[in-house]
Amino acid sequence: MKQIAFLVAVAAVAGVAVMTVQTSLHADDLRAPGFVTQIPPGFRDWRLISVAHEEGSLNSLAAVLGNDVAIKAYREGRLPFPDGAIIAALHYGHVPSDENNKVFGRSQSFVAGAATNIQFMVKDSKKYSATGGWGFGHFKDGKPGDEALMISCFPCHNQAKARDLVFTRYAP
Amino acid sequence: MKQIAFLVAVAAVAGVAVMTVQTSLHADDLRAPGFVTQIPPGFRDWRLISVAHEEGSLNSLAAVLGNDVAIKAYREGRLPFPDGAIIAALHYGHVPSDENNKVFGRSQSFVAGAATNIQFMVKDSKKYSATGGWGFGHFKDGKPGDEALMISCFPCHNQAKARDLVFTRYAP
Repeated sequence: MKQIAFLVAVAAVAGVAVMTVQTSLHADDLRAPGFVTQIPPGFRDWRLISVAHEEGSLNSLAAVLGNDVAIKAYREGRLPFPDGAIIAALHYGHVPSDENNKVFGRSQSFVAGAATNIQFMVKDSKKYSATGGWGFGHFKDGKPGDEALMISCFPCHNQAKARDLVFTRYAP
Repeated sequence: MKQIAFLVAVAAVAGVAVMTVQTSLHADDLRAPGFVTQIPPGFRDWRLISVAHEEGSLNSLAAVLGNDVAIKAYREGRLPFPDGAIIAALHYGHVPSDENNKVFGRSQSFVAGAATNIQFMVKDSKKYSATGGWGFGHFKDGKPGDEALMISCFPCHNQAKARDLVFTRYAP
């Protein structure tokens, strides 16, 4: 009797575990197909890949950083990027610097204003096989972008197929 | 006789040594008062302070990086910067990206072009006491800038006295 009770308990626990995993995967699939929903820890300490400036409605200055796997791949010119590579684009407002311009004696200086968003590309060729092996993330004030925004990442980046969907080149 | 010859030889060597040191110091003073003439090793692996864009004749995109001492001081809001802090400004051409613009469908994207120069500020309150505790460096293709250029660093940075002569603020 004790043995049967034990087996039932084990089966119940196992069942709950299986259900939890299935529910979790299912919710994850519905919510975020190919989307990165957690900010990779420590990204602000990563090394520099390059810098960029977008005019128009974006009006941004960006620092593009890479984790160790990404930096190594960049420096070795390795394509496609290996699993584990993560690229972070830190976007700031492109704002004139009155204090710098005063010293220069002319209006020419733009600096990083408030942080606008942080975007990530996470390489995992199995997990993100439907989107070229990359998971895409966009965070504003620490919160992930909604699906309407996120579904635009892959088709745009997919136009850079020759460079494994990555726009940013390494700055020496 | 041998002893005298020995002493003369020692004196001669010592004299040469003293002359060399004096000449060296003298030449150094003339050549580089407060100037950094060696590129700090490993700077390309340092962490990000911020990014910047200069229009006009500079036409540059910059990544400003700091060594561990500088990053710690920035994050703690510590002023003046402690000895050992080094700040590096990596300057690149601010060039339109045809490949990015093609994807965006409009001309808005600028990326880092060729490296133009790298500038350093090295904090050593004793060594560089005559220039606010900072040594200034400017390197183009690995070679330090000439004196005509270098003497302009300190008077310009000295206008940012309230921030210990450092223009760049930390980007979160």
